[in-house]
Amino acid sequence: MSGIAFRELTPVSFLERAAAVFADRPAVVDGGETWTYERLWDRAQRLAGLLRERGVRPGDRVAVLAPNTHLLLEAHYGVPLAGAVLVALNTRLAPGEIGYILQHSEAGLVLVDSEHRGVLDEAMAAPVPVIDSVEYDALVDGAEPHRVEVADERSLLSINYTSGTTGRPKGVMYHHRGAYLQALAMAFHAELDTAARYLWTLPMFHCNGWCFPWAVTAAGGAHHCLRKVDPAEIWRAIAEDGITHFCGAPTVLTALAEHPDAADPGRALRVFSGGAPPWPALLARMGELGIDVRHLYGLTETFGPAAVCEPQPEWPADLRQRASLIARQGIANVVAEPVRVVDPASGADVPADARTPGEILLRGNNVMLGYYRDEQATESATLDGWFRTGDLGVRHPDGYVELRDRIKDVIISGGENITSVEVENAITAHEDVLEAAVVAAPHDKWGEVPVAYVALRESASLDEAELVAFVRERIAGFKVPKRVVFGELPKTSTGKLQKNVLRERAKTVP
Amino acid sequence: MSGIAFRELTPVSFLERAAAVFADRPAVVDGGETWTYERLWDRAQRLAGLLRERGVRPGDRVAVLAPNTHLLLEAHYGVPLAGAVLVALNTRLAPGEIGYILQHSEAGLVLVDSEHRGVLDEAMAAPVPVIDSVEYDALVDGAEPHRVEVADERSLLSINYTSGTTGRPKGVMYHHRGAYLQALAMAFHAELDTAARYLWTLPMFHCNGWCFPWAVTAAGGAHHCLRKVDPAEIWRAIAEDGITHFCGAPTVLTALAEHPDAADPGRALRVFSGGAPPWPALLARMGELGIDVRHLYGLTETFGPAAVCEPQPEWPADLRQRASLIARQGIANVVAEPVRVVDPASGADVPADARTPGEILLRGNNVMLGYYRDEQATESATLDGWFRTGDLGVRHPDGYVELRDRIKDVIISGGENITSVEVENAITAHEDVLEAAVVAAPHDKWGEVPVAYVALRESASLDEAELVAFVRERIAGFKVPKRVVFGELPKTSTGKLQKNVLRERAKTVP
Repeated sequence: MSGIAFRELTPVSFLERAAAVFADRPAVVDGGETWTYERLWDRAQRLAGLLRERGVRPGDRVAVLAPNTHLLLEAHYGVPLAGAVLVALNTRLAPGEIGYILQHSEAGLVLVDSEHRGVLDEAMAAPVPVIDSVEYDALVDGAEPHRVEVADERSLLSINYTSGTTGRPKGVMYHHRGAYLQALAMAFHAELDTAARYLWTLPMFHCNGWCFPWAVTAAGGAHHCLRKVDPAEIWRAIAEDGITHFCGAPTVLTALAEHPDAADPGRALRVFSGGAPPWPALLARMGELGIDVRHLYGLTETFGPAAVCEPQPEWPADLRQRASLIARQGIANVVAEPVRVVDPASGADVPADARTPGEILLRGNNVMLGYYRDEQATESATLDGWFRTGDLGVRHPDGYVELRDRIKDVIISGGENITSVEVENAITAHEDVLEAAVVAAPHDKWGEVPVAYVALRESASLDEAELVAFVRERIAGFKVPKRVVFGELPKTSTGKLQKNVLRERAKTVP
Repeated sequence: MSGIAFRELTPVSFLERAAAVFADRPAVVDGGETWTYERLWDRAQRLAGLLRERGVRPGDRVAVLAPNTHLLLEAHYGVPLAGAVLVALNTRLAPGEIGYILQHSEAGLVLVDSEHRGVLDEAMAAPVPVIDSVEYDALVDGAEPHRVEVADERSLLSINYTSGTTGRPKGVMYHHRGAYLQALAMAFHAELDTAARYLWTLPMFHCNGWCFPWAVTAAGGAHHCLRKVDPAEIWRAIAEDGITHFCGAPTVLTALAEHPDAADPGRALRVFSGGAPPWPALLARMGELGIDVRHLYGLTETFGPAAVCEPQPEWPADLRQRASLIARQGIANVVAEPVRVVDPASGADVPADARTPGEILLRGNNVMLGYYRDEQATESATLDGWFRTGDLGVRHPDGYVELRDRIKDVIISGGENITSVEVENAITAHEDVLEAAVVAAPHDKWGEVPVAYVALRESASLDEAELVAFVRERIAGFKVPKRVVFGELPKTSTGKLQKNVLRERAKTVP
């Protein structure tokens, strides 16, 4: 594209604009240091120059293994400025998994935080050039600025490997156009502006931080880096650094709400939650802390949140009533195609009756190009030009979609479908319960029966019989868990409950 | 484009999404009637069907001559749904000008509000099929829904004829991609959401209403139609209908601020002003009414506002101090390329010293395809791939751009450049002055000298000598107007001061 009218869409352009118009505004706050947008833009171009010096060529993959520091944030600009493809690695993966991704992506260089150097060294089967965080800042400052223009907005920007609860991780390919539009959508829905102080609780390696590395920059807000999700440090940042926005999985919100430092910040604080359906009791509890929680829904394959639960002005103000509305996954974000819910057998859209379940299908400019070097997986995830989420949902009469379950998490007991989420919500309604996961256990007579894994609040003394009696008052008898196991729940590195682990355990529940 | 990832960008998609997710929310409030988004989407598709029935084919031009009623709003969707090109006509043009545009655009059909039927009939040289507002609603309801998919997002969406203060009107060609992105930018900067109630004070025929016909829909807000810019009716709508946002030229804001019903609405009301630089005194006065005025800058050629004066949190709260910051044209909007200010002789960017003037250049996806059937004009407006605005501005050290003048409005007196805006600001600082325009008058000795045309507030009794003395205290002697003429100022149909008319008059000022 050329002429006065057309420019390739790329999220890198948001930093170029910010450097021109917000030159002296704070861009990055990291460990006591504050960098302006002018400096971030300069450093991003020098990082591109450094990568070039080290032999990175356009199209090459550059992996990063780092927590949410300025290094990983800069890589979201410096790697594409070198014309290269960003592969942000999950820092909680085992060396074997990291090794697999480095090999599968054929990464030509790795940027690593020294905290993770040991794991990286263990992970590398063949040697790959490494730049360590201990030398990184000086090397970047000493490099020459460099920039490769984006020739096609539909070209590859980054590869995000799925956490792979089953099988090998798959490499989700992001394109410049999608990241640009998704970042705009996030800036719009999150109401980011120049006064925004965004705290990096959500890992940037997770769906490129739902595109917030670019969205916050588009708005001219400040990125507050955070090495570790530590509730005490988050409450400190809220109180002392004037944080206005952050994102996090419900498990992160639970940890915050339960922390002794939890306090109403006394000013607007917007929190965006996704990764798993938040339970109504948690939403209500955050509301009591004066924190506005917006619920988002999406997958790695959709650049993060494809749907937002946009509140409507007529919704009740009362938090308990409102929570069940907010807990829904909602509607397509402003750049996404309207969400479809489709009967898997017939392929027809289900009625908007809040009852009939179907698979959630997504499409639009915020959908991946496909899985890297895996055409078969790409093909299986596609149905008539739509992306199959593997999530089961219903459509409410107001058009809002509500997730019922992952299709593979549905429990089929005596021919009846039981959605694990419904049973979980009945359990977490009990005030002693912190969180719960319900999975299928094999059963001779019923085929499958629900089994519950439950984490209790500290000092709670609830027992199995009491909890079962509580749940029985709320849902049909056949949905009530046949066994309850108390204890901490296994989670993936991004905070998702690992139902595959629990399903394995449930096979041997007596 | 195809596959799961790519969809053509078109602003029509915002209505399709709104119909899916905000089906029962108010979309249009017009003359006591309220239509939902479901109904608006249905009607837009039926309008497309009606146009097809009447012989409109993809690529044909459909003209509309109407005030800001639901008819013109629906045409912003129904015309592109028919694959046709929207030509929204300025309702204040003379029959000869309308006739020229109908002929130049070769409009195949005209939608007309019966209020303007007489002018249209007079304007048409050759007969063109007409649908009149008296029959329009019934015809639309009776038509079959129809829809032509957008095959290329870079294709023609609409043609907006410039008001043509000099020469023949030029047809500015808008594309789907630009309107989509500009609408997103407007929704973001205006902080529109589902609770927004947008009042249609800005004519939709003016740059397609700065893309707000699409932006308000993207956010799921309500369009409140308005037949006529009547300050009493606007204050009524603010008080009774809960208006949250509107746009208008400074002349509209002046009329509002001066009206006896002017009152602090006691809640958030965001006003976006552009079309001419608002003077600091007016911004300060709106602030006293508790109304937040955001200043926007752009041209027909840039889909309306290409720049926004984005406030920064550190700016002083005091309105008088703040007004001079807000009065600047600001920075590129979130989808625009950074604004350039270029020395016309050397082509180099001017320093950010708030002093050195240069021509403002714009580029990006929110720039026109060119002028319809006028390659020569397109060529003259282009410089090295950038659009030449013809506006003279400076860049401040913080990166914000401030307009000094239209290049052709600069007065060259004794070899010194005098920007008319600077002289006007010195004049409007006087509390008796409502508005002022300064133009060049020919002068034997100095070449040109400044002459001021000034409208006073009602009941003011300021005379020429007093005003000249007031101005002399504020600006250098050679910039002080050599003559002051009191009286109402001539304006274009969109509320811009007609300096070309005043320049003609100034030739004969004694």
